[in-house]
Amino acid sequence: MSTAQKTTLRCRGTWEEATRSRLSVRRFPEFITDEPKPLGGTDMGPNPMEYMLAGLNGCVTVMIHVVGAEMKFAYEAVDTVADGDLDLRGLAGDPNVQAHFLEIRQKVRIKTSETPERLAELKAKVESRCPAVSLFNAAKVPVVSKWEIV
Amino acid sequence: MSTAQKTTLRCRGTWEEATRSRLSVRRFPEFITDEPKPLGGTDMGPNPMEYMLAGLNGCVTVMIHVVGAEMKFAYEAVDTVADGDLDLRGLAGDPNVQAHFLEIRQKVRIKTSETPERLAELKAKVESRCPAVSLFNAAKVPVVSKWEIV
Repeated sequence: MSTAQKTTLRCRGTWEEATRSRLSVRRFPEFITDEPKPLGGTDMGPNPMEYMLAGLNGCVTVMIHVVGAEMKFAYEAVDTVADGDLDLRGLAGDPNVQAHFLEIRQKVRIKTSETPERLAELKAKVESRCPAVSLFNAAKVPVVSKWEIV
Repeated sequence: MSTAQKTTLRCRGTWEEATRSRLSVRRFPEFITDEPKPLGGTDMGPNPMEYMLAGLNGCVTVMIHVVGAEMKFAYEAVDTVADGDLDLRGLAGDPNVQAHFLEIRQKVRIKTSETPERLAELKAKVESRCPAVSLFNAAKVPVVSKWEIV
């Protein structure tokens, strides 16, 4: 067995008003999370679950870099779109409705001259190792992903 | 049964270099995700899983606003800290190691003149309805949370 390579990530948050917070990670500029006005917010930034989708897009793109280097998979561009469905009755307090994502759909468009078979191998390896995909899989949230060469 | 209140959230990402992407949500300014240099990145922004912790802090703070309004729970300040443990062997490809968070610890400090009993009620309601907590619970990631009045 290899030795654990444990690392601890940290984020801090400070409430500003209504649903709005300032969030900070390490030395980076603070960023805002909020909710749209119909949910009682001031709509000054992405909402918290949109940051979760950002994490998914970012993580898949990181893993394309990592696995791509291992496979010597050459690519010139990557674009991602993640859509996540919520049923707002969950957070509103209906105990019979799941509060988190019901389903996520992710499109990944890669500009590459590699073959579709190599792309399928990259996708399989990325999605089996990506921490964000792993989290959604563990939570049994379907992540319906479609990767294509452009 | 109440009618579903389905909403779809969206985030887009564009790869820039190595592990770095620009992410965008609705009309808000783009934001950067990256990885530290030891992981092959350019370290220009929070990493993807740090955005997941941001989502957790933001979501709990949103739910304190929502549930607090229902309970008429008065508060003046909220600070959150979320720590999440990863074992990097998972993303490095060890199939026996979980790629996502092993454990999350969250501290919530609320400035309030409410009683500890009322705080415990707020905490229980928030954590049972918060989409982010719900996601980690569904994934069986322990979220060890400590709420205190300051």
